[in-house]
Amino acid sequence: MQDIFPDTSPIVDRVALIGLGLIGTSLARAMRRRGLAAHIAGYAQSQKTRDAVAEMGIVDSVYDTMQNAVRDADLVILCVPVGVLGAVAQEIAPALKPGAIVSDVGSVKKAVIESVGPYVPEGVHFIPAHPIAGTEHSGPFSGFAELFDERWCVLTPLEGMGQAYAEAVDRLTHFWSACGAHVEIMEAKHHDLVLAITSHVPHLIAYNIVGTAADLEDVTRSEVIKYSAGGFRDFTRIAASDPTMWRDVFLNNSEAVLEMLARFSEDLTALQRAIRWKDADALYNLFSRTREIRRSIIEAGQETPEPDFGRSHGSEHEADD
Amino acid sequence: MQDIFPDTSPIVDRVALIGLGLIGTSLARAMRRRGLAAHIAGYAQSQKTRDAVAEMGIVDSVYDTMQNAVRDADLVILCVPVGVLGAVAQEIAPALKPGAIVSDVGSVKKAVIESVGPYVPEGVHFIPAHPIAGTEHSGPFSGFAELFDERWCVLTPLEGMGQAYAEAVDRLTHFWSACGAHVEIMEAKHHDLVLAITSHVPHLIAYNIVGTAADLEDVTRSEVIKYSAGGFRDFTRIAASDPTMWRDVFLNNSEAVLEMLARFSEDLTALQRAIRWKDADALYNLFSRTREIRRSIIEAGQETPEPDFGRSHGSEHEADD
Repeated sequence: MQDIFPDTSPIVDRVALIGLGLIGTSLARAMRRRGLAAHIAGYAQSQKTRDAVAEMGIVDSVYDTMQNAVRDADLVILCVPVGVLGAVAQEIAPALKPGAIVSDVGSVKKAVIESVGPYVPEGVHFIPAHPIAGTEHSGPFSGFAELFDERWCVLTPLEGMGQAYAEAVDRLTHFWSACGAHVEIMEAKHHDLVLAITSHVPHLIAYNIVGTAADLEDVTRSEVIKYSAGGFRDFTRIAASDPTMWRDVFLNNSEAVLEMLARFSEDLTALQRAIRWKDADALYNLFSRTREIRRSIIEAGQETPEPDFGRSHGSEHEADD
Repeated sequence: MQDIFPDTSPIVDRVALIGLGLIGTSLARAMRRRGLAAHIAGYAQSQKTRDAVAEMGIVDSVYDTMQNAVRDADLVILCVPVGVLGAVAQEIAPALKPGAIVSDVGSVKKAVIESVGPYVPEGVHFIPAHPIAGTEHSGPFSGFAELFDERWCVLTPLEGMGQAYAEAVDRLTHFWSACGAHVEIMEAKHHDLVLAITSHVPHLIAYNIVGTAADLEDVTRSEVIKYSAGGFRDFTRIAASDPTMWRDVFLNNSEAVLEMLARFSEDLTALQRAIRWKDADALYNLFSRTREIRRSIIEAGQETPEPDFGRSHGSEHEADD
């Protein structure tokens, strides 16, 4: 990968990461990679996680209270499930430094603005953010420095906030770019709608079909597992994502998710009817036009072009030829 | 990979492949890898494909009529979409050698038995088969020798066929094993039900959500593409599969697909209700138990354990550490 940030001088003095799971530890590693922060402070709820992160040496100091972690920080990033963001904001508020930026990484934005906003003190800049990156793994050992490379990070700044806030948005933009991401500014409500179709509903139907398959009586679970290479296994990846995080996403973006789900179900009913009535053309037409979208995603650098996601037999193939 | 077939002496004299797409050319390469056939004859409808395969040198002779391709063959494998299998069987029937095995690779089995069965001459052994392997790519250039390694190939032999047929089933089992696959014998109707949930419905809902996303007015296509890393891109892989093949699958396995789709929709409606009524426990419980299934699939050797399917940033990560 081309080194687009050869300069390793810090772009922020002190960063506090609240939550040290997949996203928190990936952020720590991404900062370390380029020397983006003079000091990284970390907080995790469990002693086990704090010990693990201290041992990895990817942060400079680990705290067992959120207030101590955020004290004197110029940038505070909340890397916890959306459902607890309000409580976290309330807890850290008294310890925040004037002029600091408080941001998050939550997958929904309108609900986060509503739950966090009221607790942010005057003079602290609250800028909601969402890096669209992740894997199905969670916890402090799942992070890696390249997680955000070439992925998009959406900021949904508050409106009518003045010059100092606008400059803080610029600084946060610079920070995420330096972590490898492309940054996009978007309205919170629109973000929630876009993510409902590109992320939330896909997760929901993946969880759903894995659940349906597990509950069958005529087909055994062992058969589902053995013959999963026919397509099913693709769905199990995102259906293995963190349950707490995803519960909170659906509870906090229900409106947009239900809207998109209604469209999905409507289309699925039409497809079901086409199968029942053997409407060959309707099936062929849909199956042809969906190919184009994948091509575009690959061209946009958001997906690998290798067959089967480049899973093992694909790479063996290349090695053999 | 361990060489489990060090002996390269042919296990079948003459094999004919009717259709030289992803599966046909992968079979040719898998046979070549171990020297499984003394002679591989191939047929493809288009001159372009015949020229391409001749140039690749993965078959010994290329024919422009199916009858010439199957003449004198001991094993004929039909690698064409399910919808044309009946017509192909009718065409090749007069040229089949007595004692030959005719098999296929179709993703549905009951309909294939009904469409092919009546044309198979007395003394020729028709053994329906389905290797559960593939990628989203199609055409003669997409094949590779390792496609069937560690995947399952299901045979659905006809019933009450006597000793010579049973021996032919043994020979075909040996052949697929030598191509790298595990072989399982199953009743055709049960196969169609198992594949409906492990392959056909997953493809259908993948095609469906990609279609839904493409048709939105409030979210642009460019937004869907940019932010696809949140989960959507996983679905686009199988929604990029061959449209003709999949049209035929749904037309020919409609009963089992509609049954499984009804269960999927029922479960999705319950999930939708849980979101609307903010039933946090129902969501958390489903999201937790689906993780277990993926773990089992990985343990069964049917999936890669690497996060994100081992897509590029995952491997970069490993390279860096």
